Amino acid sequence: MSHNSFGHLFRVTTFGESHGVAIGCVVDGCPPLLPLGVEDIQRDLDRRRPGQSRFTTQRQEPDQVKILSGVMAHPESGIQVTTGTPVALLIENTDQRSKDYSDIKDKYRPGHADFTYEAKYGIRDHRGGGRSSARETASRVAAGAVARKVISGVTVRAALVAMGPHRIDRDKWDWDEVARNPFFCPDKDKAAFFEGYLDGVRKSGSSIGAVIEVVAEGVPAGWGAPIYGKLDSDLAAALMSINAVKGVEIGEGFNAAALSGEQNADEMRMGNNGPAFLSNHAGGILGGISTGQPVVARFAVKPTSSILSPRRTIDRAGADTDILTKGRHDPCVGIRAVPVGEAMMACVLADHLLRHRAQVG
Amino acid sequence: MSHNSFGHLFRVTTFGESHGVAIGCVVDGCPPLLPLGVEDIQRDLDRRRPGQSRFTTQRQEPDQVKILSGVMAHPESGIQVTTGTPVALLIENTDQRSKDYSDIKDKYRPGHADFTYEAKYGIRDHRGGGRSSARETASRVAAGAVARKVISGVTVRAALVAMGPHRIDRDKWDWDEVARNPFFCPDKDKAAFFEGYLDGVRKSGSSIGAVIEVVAEGVPAGWGAPIYGKLDSDLAAALMSINAVKGVEIGEGFNAAALSGEQNADEMRMGNNGPAFLSNHAGGILGGISTGQPVVARFAVKPTSSILSPRRTIDRAGADTDILTKGRHDPCVGIRAVPVGEAMMACVLADHLLRHRAQVG
Amino acid sequence: MSHNSFGHLFRVTTFGESHGVAIGCVVDGCPPLLPLGVEDIQRDLDRRRPGQSRFTTQRQEPDQVKILSGVMAHPESGIQVTTGTPVALLIENTDQRSKDYSDIKDKYRPGHADFTYEAKYGIRDHRGGGRSSARETASRVAAGAVARKVISGVTVRAALVAMGPHRIDRDKWDWDEVARNPFFCPDKDKAAFFEGYLDGVRKSGSSIGAVIEVVAEGVPAGWGAPIYGKLDSDLAAALMSINAVKGVEIGEGFNAAALSGEQNADEMRMGNNGPAFLSNHAGGILGGISTGQPVVARFAVKPTSSILSPRRTIDRAGADTDILTKGRHDPCVGIRAVPVGEAMMACVLADHLLRHRAQVG
Amino acid sequence: MSHNSFGHLFRVTTFGESHGVAIGCVVDGCPPLLPLGVEDIQRDLDRRRPGQSRFTTQRQEPDQVKILSGVMAHPESGIQVTTGTPVALLIENTDQRSKDYSDIKDKYRPGHADFTYEAKYGIRDHRGGGRSSARETASRVAAGAVARKVISGVTVRAALVAMGPHRIDRDKWDWDEVARNPFFCPDKDKAAFFEGYLDGVRKSGSSIGAVIEVVAEGVPAGWGAPIYGKLDSDLAAALMSINAVKGVEIGEGFNAAALSGEQNADEMRMGNNGPAFLSNHAGGILGGISTGQPVVARFAVKPTSSILSPRRTIDRAGADTDILTKGRHDPCVGIRAVPVGEAMMACVLADHLLRHRAQVG
Repeated sequence: MSHNSFGHLFRVTTFGESHGVAIGCVVDGCPPLLPLGVEDIQRDLDRRRPGQSRFTTQRQEPDQVKILSGVMAHPESGIQVTTGTPVALLIENTDQRSKDYSDIKDKYRPGHADFTYEAKYGIRDHRGGGRSSARETASRVAAGAVARKVISGVTVRAALVAMGPHRIDRDKWDWDEVARNPFFCPDKDKAAFFEGYLDGVRKSGSSIGAVIEVVAEGVPAGWGAPIYGKLDSDLAAALMSINAVKGVEIGEGFNAAALSGEQNADEMRMGNNGPAFLSNHAGGILGGISTGQPVVARFAVKPTSSILSPRRTIDRAGADTDILTKGRHDPCVGIRAVPVGEAMMACVLADHLLRHRAQVG
Repeated sequence: MSHNSFGHLFRVTTFGESHGVAIGCVVDGCPPLLPLGVEDIQRDLDRRRPGQSRFTTQRQEPDQVKILSGVMAHPESGIQVTTGTPVALLIENTDQRSKDYSDIKDKYRPGHADFTYEAKYGIRDHRGGGRSSARETASRVAAGAVARKVISGVTVRAALVAMGPHRIDRDKWDWDEVARNPFFCPDKDKAAFFEGYLDGVRKSGSSIGAVIEVVAEGVPAGWGAPIYGKLDSDLAAALMSINAVKGVEIGEGFNAAALSGEQNADEMRMGNNGPAFLSNHAGGILGGISTGQPVVARFAVKPTSSILSPRRTIDRAGADTDILTKGRHDPCVGIRAVPVGEAMMACVLADHLLRHRAQVG
Repeated sequence: MSHNSFGHLFRVTTFGESHGVAIGCVVDGCPPLLPLGVEDIQRDLDRRRPGQSRFTTQRQEPDQVKILSGVMAHPESGIQVTTGTPVALLIENTDQRSKDYSDIKDKYRPGHADFTYEAKYGIRDHRGGGRSSARETASRVAAGAVARKVISGVTVRAALVAMGPHRIDRDKWDWDEVARNPFFCPDKDKAAFFEGYLDGVRKSGSSIGAVIEVVAEGVPAGWGAPIYGKLDSDLAAALMSINAVKGVEIGEGFNAAALSGEQNADEMRMGNNGPAFLSNHAGGILGGISTGQPVVARFAVKPTSSILSPRRTIDRAGADTDILTKGRHDPCVGIRAVPVGEAMMACVLADHLLRHRAQVG
Repeated sequence: MSHNSFGHLFRVTTFGESHGVAIGCVVDGCPPLLPLGVEDIQRDLDRRRPGQSRFTTQRQEPDQVKILSGVMAHPESGIQVTTGTPVALLIENTDQRSKDYSDIKDKYRPGHADFTYEAKYGIRDHRGGGRSSARETASRVAAGAVARKVISGVTVRAALVAMGPHRIDRDKWDWDEVARNPFFCPDKDKAAFFEGYLDGVRKSGSSIGAVIEVVAEGVPAGWGAPIYGKLDSDLAAALMSINAVKGVEIGEGFNAAALSGEQNADEMRMGNNGPAFLSNHAGGILGGISTGQPVVARFAVKPTSSILSPRRTIDRAGADTDILTKGRHDPCVGIRAVPVGEAMMACVLADHLLRHRAQVG
């Protein structure tokens, strides 16, 4: 057991605070001989990096990752590959601006983990949220890049499918659009709408929630392990562990509660390439095991709790007070959760590939 | 790691197939000296037991539990208490009627785990769904009864809050109602409505989904462990691992995505008994750690996949065929998921109590 | 984590007290489609069973094992095979004679776990030692029989190589002898000597220690996982967890401390079947990973603490007293540790086979 | 599960290769509010550091540790304390001299892990042994320094008790001597003898083994967890995981095999401070649980495999060849294993303190 690790065979341990010396992770259990260069990891980190549009926090972090261990040039090919030993990844903190946070040192920000960390540990690192900062998710993205190498036949992609009360039109879904707008939104028209909408939220000093959908294609039938190592159970844990996430669903998700058995069951027919399902209400998972269809998960991200409107709270001494967060923040933290969701899906799948191979060969 | 275990310090391992010799569980890590009699466990099992109304499967299982180990009469008080060693619980299978399932031996039931188990293992126990049967949840309920002893100051209750498209009226919520109707429904009027509604579903050989809400009161601030041992992350895994569950949410859940930061944050004031929150959008968890407010989780249960309408499927030989499930089934399997949800919440909290005590004392 | 489980992917959880209802285990992670009948398990249990000679406790337990789950007749061959779900094994306690232990209810037997269990838990099951009884090792042997199926190309055997100060002559080692004497001794002459020697120990109401050697042949190079999942590290934990074991060594073991680098290193040459070692001081493990040579481990078993001579001790009330153990006991508990050592070796290897397959394929 | 982690609640994950960018560890589960400065860790690292006498490798590594996370100045006292989040420790590699190893790139050094790493992973980092180098033990020592803070009432010390065939005189045991000679030897006279003895070994290009004893005083009765989380079982795993260790024993250890029940049992009497044992053959552990007496463990370290005499081996292409190791090496690697043994003992005890507190409170 470990509070700061996830996965079992592909196991990621993260460390670091928002304004400490560095953050990073150790990826253990990675199969050997996988090509892995720093650029493979940097690519994903750059997608998550803040400060790339006016819609994410203006904190300027280059987020340059270093590989400390676990790789070497292959003696024959010269290509840098994993060796089977732990891959340690380090990202130094550079733009820390701790002064921004000095006025919240003694106050609990509503919706943040300030109160609970202090209730638990008797101390909290108030600088930028310390360990509870979304900055920790950079380590997840770095680990996810390694995971992608492990599940090389699988494509993991995510997209923002709702912001505030506004949902995308699924008929307009275009994966190529995701890279073309600052929202990771697959619906071009809705992305255009979000520009104005989120500008309004941002200028008013407010924030808004979002829903992200993650899809993994190419997962063969058979991954996942009943009863408590179910693929969907592990996905739920992984996605719910992301900062600010309050809900997770698979396939039809909550909508399934309103359906009849006839509507919800995915019928089967033999196809040209073996068994085929005629629909995917199940989101690619039955009984905790992958069906061979795309694995589909969604998660809800609450609105950023740091807002410009003063909120009622208390301080460490137990006195009533008000708080107003002046630091740099995301008006919709759900946007940057998109690559994080991909990373968590990739890590869960890498773990289950190894687990499946262990038991079934 | 273990596929059939959950929890870390309060650790439950379950075993058994629907139509095998017996099912059961081993509860390891239980603190010593907790009073525990077979009646404590039987009480919860009886709430889950099928065949108690026309709205659940007519399978007649007494579900009598035996305690095989881990308890003894206290040398002074004579009361049976835990000893700190593994509590093994056994429930023998009696009403197995395997013949009901003989015609599905070679066909994959849509929406069931038949296809995926066989894809994974190359074999599946077709008798009543084998390991993937909801019968496994009896073991969870038994373990949950032990967990309740561990978290003795905490009250864990659950209720059905939606069936099909019909949601309860939260203003009519009455916990006492839950025990008075066969749906575990806290809204008396909606329960009356569900009688007719579910009769219709049942008579048509169809099925319907449901949403269950689980509430834990009395959890102190500080339980939960960032980052990957978050209380909500573990709850998500635990609830998603229940058969037929497709979604999990905490507090506002998916609704949080549509809220603004102002709407969603729970403000604080000093109360008579220390820090108090003015609302509970967070569902009692911030940063993965309990706030001291009620912990609130909901989960969506899909409609039972076994229905009387013939569905298209394939058989083990790879030929197209149709299937129609004639066995005894629940028209709304979500009903019996209510005590199961309570059990999982209790187990997660017991685990986190021990984890918190370990690190913080 | 689990106090009463061992292994990671081939994971065994045991339960039960010496004089409770039953003992048993749950074996999780077992690969599917392995032939497994109750007779496979009973065969090993019978080797460990007490009461087979005057040199082991006269407790008469048939130790009949039942398979509760995890197997079924293969749909084509009809042979009973594993299904990939947990294999639960149950052994009911029959000859419990609790009265034998009533006079030690309030006294701590020197060398036993009576004092420490009570110090830890505030309660202890005094009947036959409860959970700390060597009876628990029957569950290990049962699990080991399942493990042997997993590592089907590997032969695991053990033998008693010393009793008290008397060591066998390794030049007379004959594996066939092991089944021919009640000591599992591979040296025929020493076995003959042990008859008289142990009769003397037994008749004087005393007891004596032993050393057991376990050898696994057929383990390919590459099993084991640096740094903290080393094969030898896991073997050390597994063997040290057996009741009364006080020392474990691999290959040369403690003798290696007295050797020079020239003496201890195993040189290599290409053989007809690939790389070959010219000696096996390493006991088949280098850097925590198997070399392809036989894996050789030894463990020391202390003398049974239950002896007829009165010993000084204290009682639960804190008063000085004496104790003399009248129950049925083994004059050399190391004898019955032989099949237990085999079982632990088999379980560790099964776990490492799965772990190796997971990471390396 | 994790190959490169140990401990459950006090959990250490190490990473890094001998000649890579850096080595280090992440310590998870550490209780909050423990004073922890870099000097606390450096002190222990300096004891292990090579190059301090002619009897250890001349590799010159300052082994300066950095704390990357998990600590901050206490808001009231200003003292740096743990926060309950992961403590990440980094030691950069500086004196790497990879050229020393170029001639062994394609040959397997007998007694080293070269052959087994390559057999397992299909690749190995030949530079200084890569991950299998004793350099990894610096991370253990760093983690052990944190562990000492957790078990603040316990004193953990180790000493070298045998080198080659030469054992110390236990009657001359003086803990103060340990810091006064380059062998960590508690027997002044034997230390003087070892100077000449080991010089002879060193000058001949040979190497020799050693036995180390680790003693923990102040451990209360009750730590440890039957059956597979026994304190001695975890100690055995921890000590056997140290490079070059081939045997582990507790208390009387292998000697117990030669004793009678009368000789080996530790009798009890009420003392002034509660229950007292009249001897400590058990090494402070009964039934896997601490007795309150000193916990005593010993481990055997094999002779360094890198020696100047040419040895027969094969190369990666499968051809017979000879090898002679010219790099800088320890004539008795057991010397530097002394602080490593202390660190492992401290880590195991810290883990068990937390585990005990979790279950029993």
